[in-house]
This record gives sequence, structure tokens and C-alpha cells, in this order.
Amino acid sequence: MSASTVSASTLNASASVLLEGRLDVVHAGIDAVAEAPRSTGATVTVVDFEPPSGGDPRRMTLLSEVLSGPKAPEIDAANACTLAHLLASRPHLVGIGIARDVIPGMAEDLFLHAGPPVTWERMCGPMRGAVIGGLLHEGRAKSTEEAASLAASGAVRFDPCHHHDTVGPMAGLVTPSMPVFIVEDRGGERAGARTFCTLNEGLGKVLRYGAFSAEVLARLEFMRDELAPVLAAALALRGPIDLKHLMAQALQMGDEGHNRNRAGTSLLFRELAPAVVRATEDRERAARVLDFVNGNDHFFLNLSMPMGKCMLKAAEGEPLSSLVTVMARNGTDFGIQLASMPGRWFTGPALQVRGLYFPGFSQADANPDIGDSAITETAGFGGFAMGAAPAIVQFVGGSAEDALAATRAMRRITLGANSGFAIPALGFAGTPTGIDLRLVEEKNLLPQINTGIAHKDPGVGQVGAGLVNPPWEAFHAALEALAEHVRAAAPPPRA
Amino acid sequence: MSASTVSASTLNASASVLLEGRLDVVHAGIDAVAEAPRSTGATVTVVDFEPPSGGDPRRMTLLSEVLSGPKAPEIDAANACTLAHLLASRPHLVGIGIARDVIPGMAEDLFLHAGPPVTWERMCGPMRGAVIGGLLHEGRAKSTEEAASLAASGAVRFDPCHHHDTVGPMAGLVTPSMPVFIVEDRGGERAGARTFCTLNEGLGKVLRYGAFSAEVLARLEFMRDELAPVLAAALALRGPIDLKHLMAQALQMGDEGHNRNRAGTSLLFRELAPAVVRATEDRERAARVLDFVNGNDHFFLNLSMPMGKCMLKAAEGEPLSSLVTVMARNGTDFGIQLASMPGRWFTGPALQVRGLYFPGFSQADANPDIGDSAITETAGFGGFAMGAAPAIVQFVGGSAEDALAATRAMRRITLGANSGFAIPALGFAGTPTGIDLRLVEEKNLLPQINTGIAHKDPGVGQVGAGLVNPPWEAFHAALEALAEHVRAAAPPPRA
Repeated sequence: MSASTVSASTLNASASVLLEGRLDVVHAGIDAVAEAPRSTGATVTVVDFEPPSGGDPRRMTLLSEVLSGPKAPEIDAANACTLAHLLASRPHLVGIGIARDVIPGMAEDLFLHAGPPVTWERMCGPMRGAVIGGLLHEGRAKSTEEAASLAASGAVRFDPCHHHDTVGPMAGLVTPSMPVFIVEDRGGERAGARTFCTLNEGLGKVLRYGAFSAEVLARLEFMRDELAPVLAAALALRGPIDLKHLMAQALQMGDEGHNRNRAGTSLLFRELAPAVVRATEDRERAARVLDFVNGNDHFFLNLSMPMGKCMLKAAEGEPLSSLVTVMARNGTDFGIQLASMPGRWFTGPALQVRGLYFPGFSQADANPDIGDSAITETAGFGGFAMGAAPAIVQFVGGSAEDALAATRAMRRITLGANSGFAIPALGFAGTPTGIDLRLVEEKNLLPQINTGIAHKDPGVGQVGAGLVNPPWEAFHAALEALAEHVRAAAPPPRA
Repeated sequence: MSASTVSASTLNASASVLLEGRLDVVHAGIDAVAEAPRSTGATVTVVDFEPPSGGDPRRMTLLSEVLSGPKAPEIDAANACTLAHLLASRPHLVGIGIARDVIPGMAEDLFLHAGPPVTWERMCGPMRGAVIGGLLHEGRAKSTEEAASLAASGAVRFDPCHHHDTVGPMAGLVTPSMPVFIVEDRGGERAGARTFCTLNEGLGKVLRYGAFSAEVLARLEFMRDELAPVLAAALALRGPIDLKHLMAQALQMGDEGHNRNRAGTSLLFRELAPAVVRATEDRERAARVLDFVNGNDHFFLNLSMPMGKCMLKAAEGEPLSSLVTVMARNGTDFGIQLASMPGRWFTGPALQVRGLYFPGFSQADANPDIGDSAITETAGFGGFAMGAAPAIVQFVGGSAEDALAATRAMRRITLGANSGFAIPALGFAGTPTGIDLRLVEEKNLLPQINTGIAHKDPGVGQVGAGLVNPPWEAFHAALEALAEHVRAAAPPPRA
């Protein structure tokens, strides 16, 4: 039952009838209120209940304004429209290009990173490590020390990936010479929009986790000089790949598209392999490329991410929508954006991940939550599709039932479900899609994010994986801004 | 509750106490028995119950002999041993050879077929179609008519695949020049044992469903002359592939290894592709082979089957075991074998499949149940792993919960579970493994088999897919034989 059905006024109005017999009270709300009936000897059954917005009076007022105020029907309509755009988006992998050539606004002195804006001074260890690795990879520095002092001196500018229609896992570093997947929307009104992501390096010591050793740099060179050209030629021969179709199959094969990508990687590999062979004269080169993709069950992550970004880009721009279009972390701050205010960040501190650690590491080694990969949850898969991937909950000692419960819980804070992404174990229900800021506040329920864990120091790499939530601060700030934004919006024209 | 707890003698013995108050009776068993207490005005609650062995007095006696007679502990011990052998088996794909060269007892005038022995006269339409196609493929006939009269004239002998450590889906036809997968046991005491299966042709018009048109014959030629040599060379380069490891992953990715093999096929494709490229000078040839495998989500079925046969071969030979080691159909008869009597068939009529039909076809077009593919259920996957593949139950209008229930039900007739084959949605419980003939009779519960449906006429092909059970006759005959076999066994040496 909701709190309103046991409000004091209701109780008083019908008290004469209610109090004729012995009093049985069901109580939901502030504990002290239950004392009065209890003192009369009545049976009081306390129902687990939390008031909306954590019971903060100011936020409760703002929330009721956007949930049931005069502008609420317009917000509802904007959200319906926003969700329809998101669901109509049809991202395809159309090619592979070099960042400097294809990412809008990319420049020779610009490095892109995950999450909201951050300066070198406030950057976490793994992101600094990635920047150092990026400077070495670009040939801008010869040593770690030189790279660090170059970065501190302002020799390169830093910009969030999201400001350039790009997403990057973990540190999310994109430097000008890196190859990137090009994902293009081929459906709905926003067709033609493009998003970008680097190619996945694999696990262990990798740049995105802040490592920059010789093996990391050698792999980046192989990816730029061999992997990307071979895959680009194969893609050109084969033609675009429908990523939503591929993801729909992967969700029926135990993936959730964030922490588990074995099926997506396998299906992508099948799509690409014959074309790789046909497009490559040097057989050993083709085989090395196939070995590399086959050796990394997360290869598809760097396509599920720009697919999610592409879907959410389609959702941007409805003036009053409360749908969350970005959740991203730079390892220091966690930022979100709303469909109604594209480009405007609402932030809070990045939190610690609850997870399992690789042997020899513990929570004490962990950097806070980092990366743009929460775009998967924002687009309605990843942690939101946990019910499709019960193997993931084993990371944190959970059961298959916990995985289903996690997905059901996320349906409480989303505007709808994506029938294109069906979860077999939930009777083929679609994945919960379209986080509504208002529902997050009303239900006191934060989005659940699956993620990897980076070591807090530069140069180390991945130390574990687990689950994390965004900080409440980001959602509270967005609620304030939405209420103000809605108030400021022009009234609808008079009839 | 079991029937024995409400037996008449028990009721009489304590009747004086029981009948002091008002009578409440819980009744399980023959309906007429409930009438006596009901006529006294007592409340009678009828519990759903079926007596073992369908209530047949003769079979109930035989069953109680093998379940709780003096030899029962020996049967239990033999079954434990048999199951241990089955679970310890470690089938690997070790190569591809030509049937005449590698299958034991194969000869130039011998065609192998699915199921128990059958003559040309009693062969069903699709199996006759496959034989006709096989004669055309081998160059023994120039026309359908010539092939049919050759087959009827005894120009080739027919033998069950199972008599040659081979299994074949649907018609299961193996002719001397066909390439076959070679699967070898690399674990347990029975290491070194080999089983065989042809390569999967794909769906639609294919020989195994009784089609023999020009496109069917052209595909068989491509498979013999290009696919098999390329894959054989790739396998030689790469080394053996652990099929149980691959199947364990596939079961976590929505496959059950009989009617759904998309994950298994994808994972196999990933394992083979780099080696295919390295082993093949002609790039276009390599690409055609990769295209063929990628184009057929059932390619892995013809490996899951000889894997199952390999596991069950390891289980053969314990003198008193009641474990079922073969379930196979020739489209006319359904036959089973027991671990204690390898090679001896117990048969009944092949039944109709409950399923969905391709557009334009109906139950009236369907051939009865056919093929050796029920070896998957016999080995503890396929229909027994339905909980891993809820997408399958959609074939027959079922839900994800039905899929879990199907797997739980099969646990009632199996001796154990295979912890190497974990089902995520069942809390990572192992698949029900090791059908005990005694439990099938005791629980009145037949194994559930997933299968395809062939047109009843030669030359047509597949018309649908669905679920089927074996005929009771086969199990009843096996029970008779087991009881006799156990009685005839030498008594254990005196102490």
C-alpha cells in the first residue's frame, strides 16, 4: 500500500466507524506515528516503506511538482516521445576509422576521456595512467616522467568522450591516431547520427585500466596497424552489421552486454570471419586478427557501448523529458545527463564497486567507479538485463533468482521495456529501458551498474569486477535542475 | 505421500484409534477404495497418484524385484559405477575421416541408418529417401527409380549406426564415401574409445530429412570435396577440441545441444576459424567453408551427438546396470538399450511428434519420430537440459517456467546430475543424467526428447520441430529382460 492511504485525514474522517471494534492498524511511514494506536492496545503491523526522495521535504516538493504538478502531463508526453525515439533507433556498425578523421571536433592536441569533465589535477590514478600511455603511444613522450610532466603542463587538452558522440570503457582514453568503430543510426527519425568507440584491448594489463607498459603499447600498435585495417576492409566487403539484432540474440545467450559479452563476441566473430579471409591477402595476418578477436570475450563491449550511445542520442532533445540519457564516470566524479538538457552534467562522487577481486588485490587497491560503460545500463541492458545473464551474479555471490530480481527492480525506475531485447527467463519480457529521473527519486531506487574495477594507481590495470550504484547527489542535482527547467519553460499556448 | 502409507492393513491395525473421532481420509490409489469411508460420511481427500508401471500387476512384480529384491543392491552398485564412467568420459573432436576408412566394420556395400535394425520393406519414407540420395551420391544409381529398385534388390546391406559406434540425426544415413567427425574419449578408464558422426548439412532440403534433389547432392559433394578436407586440415593444425568444455559453455548460452545449437556452433566456429585460414592456401575456399559453418546454427549438433555416444559408450558393460545407454529411432521403431546388455534392442513403435509445422505443412504430413539424436537426452542434455534453453519451449507454446519444470521432471528418472553441465536458471544445478529404466517405470514418467519433424514421403525434407516421448513398449520390454537378466546372473560368491 502507499503512504497516502493511511494519511491522518483519512483516519480521522472515518474514525467513528473504524474505532467501533478492536483496532487493527497497518502502518507505513514515520515510526513515531505508530505509537498512538499502539498505546491504545491496537495491533500495529508495520509495512516496510520509505518516503520518496529519501523524505527530504524540499526534494519531495520538487518531485511532486514534476510528477503531479500542472506541467506533469507535458513531461509525461515528452518522455513517451523520448522513449519512442530511443526504441526506434537502429544502430549499425558501418565502419572503422581513425579518431582524428572521423570523431567530430577531434584535434591533434585533444585527448578524450570517460565521464564528466575533469582536469589533470583531479584525475584518478588509472586515468592518469591512460593519459601517460596515450602520450607514449602518440610519440609525444619518450618516458613515463616526460609524459606525466607534459600532461601536467597542458600540452594536451582533455574533453569528455560524450562531448564528441564517443564512449570509452574505464579510462575511456581516445587519442588522435587511435582506430574507432563507427556506429550509425539506420532507423527512426534520427537516422544518420553517428557514435564512436575504440576497439577493445582484452583483459589484464590494458590502457583503459591505466596500464602503460611495453606490452600495452605494443598491443595498441598492433590494433592500429593491423587489427583495425583488416577489420575495416572486412566490414567494407561485408557491409553494415545490425547491432540491435546481434544484441537481441546475445541476450538470449547469457550476455547482458556489459560485464558479459561472450555471445555477442561470438556472433560478431561469425559475421566478420569470412569477410576477414576474403579481404586479406596475407593469410597469417588474417589469422592473427581472428586470433585476437577470438582471444577476447569482451571484444563486443566496445560495440554494445556505442550502440547504447546511438540509441540514447536519438532520445536527446525533447524539451521537458526527465529521461536519463547519460551515466558516466571519470573515476573521480559520476555524472548524468537528461534528455531535456543535453550536454549539461549533474555530478556526485564516484563510489566504490562491490565486487570480487583478482588474487592478491582487495578493496584497498580499488579505484572508485570509472568509465562510460554505464551507457549500457542507461540504454536498457548491462545491469538492467541481469536476468539474461545469471552467470554474472556469481561475481558477488548471488543466485539466478537475484539476477531476475535485479531486472524486475530496474523496471520500477524505467519508462518502458524494449521488446526487441527479450529475456527468456522472464517470460521473454523486454529489458527495462528509459530511466526516469522522477521514478528514481520517487522509488528511492538507484540504477544498478555492472562494472570492472581498476587499480587506483597508474600503471597497474584491472583488479576485479562487480556491481555499483551512482551517487544520489547526481540525481538530486538533476531533480533541482529539471524542476527549474520545467518552471522556466514557456506555458503551452492558450486555447 | 506414497500409496503404501494408506494400505488396508495399516488402516485396520490402527482403526480402533483412528475411528474414535470423525474420519478424515487422504486417498491415493484405486478410486473404488475411497467409496467405503466416503459412505460413512468421512471427508475423503483424493491425492493425484498413479501406481508404478502403470498399475500392471506383472510389471509391478518385476519392478519390485529389481528395485527392492535381493539383487537390488547389486543393481544400485552397478548403476553408481556406470554413472561414474559416463561422467568421467571426456570426448574430444580429434579429426575428420572418410567413413570407409575410419568407422569399424564399414564396407563398400554397407549403408548405416538411424535407430534399431530395419529392412528396406519396413523403412519409413524419409529413410528411403535418404537411401535413394545415398545411392545417387555414391554413383551407384543414375536415377531415383534405379536407386529405389537397387535398394529393394539388396544391392546394399543396412546396419544401424549404433552397431558401428556411430550416430546420425534423422535418417542418419552414412555411406562409405561420406566424411565423418572422429570423437575420442580422453578421460576416465575408457579413454581411447572413438565415436563417429557425419557433418551437418544445414536446414531445409537435406538428405537426413529424406530429400535427394540436385541441390542436396551438390551440397553433399561440396561437403566431401571441400568442407571436410579444409576442416580436417584445420583440426590437424589446431589439435583436439574438448567437446564437454564447449558444451558446458553452450548450456550457459541458451543451447540444450539438440534442437538449439547456436552457441555451440558459434564457439566451435571461433575455435576453428583461425586454423582454417592458416591451413588453407586458397582464401576463397577457406571463406566458403567459414560461410557454410556460419550459415548453419545446427552445425554443432553433429558433434553434440557423437559426444553423447562417446559418454554412453563409456557407461556400457556393467553386468547388472539398469542405465539406458541408447534411445534411437528409425522412423518406424523406437529402440533402447541398457548398459548391462550392450547391443540388445528393446523396441516399440515410433510415435508422432507434438510440435509446430512450417507454413503449408501439418501433422498429416509428419513422419513418426526418427533419428539417433535422442542420444543427447540419453547422455543428459537436449530435452533434459530444456531449462538452459527456454527459447525452445516456444516451439510448443510453452513458457520459461515450463522449460525449468521439464528439466526438474527429468531429474526424477535419472541416477544423478552432471555438475560439468550447469544450468544457470536452476541455480547452476547439473543436467539430469543417466536414465534409470527402473525409475522410468516407477515414476510412470517417460524421457522427454526434443526433435525435428521429417515429411513422411521420400524427397521432401523437414516440415517442423517439437517434443516427443519414447513408446512405453520399449521400456516394458527392457524391464522384462532386465528382471530375467538379473535372475540369471550368477549369485555373489559366499562369504
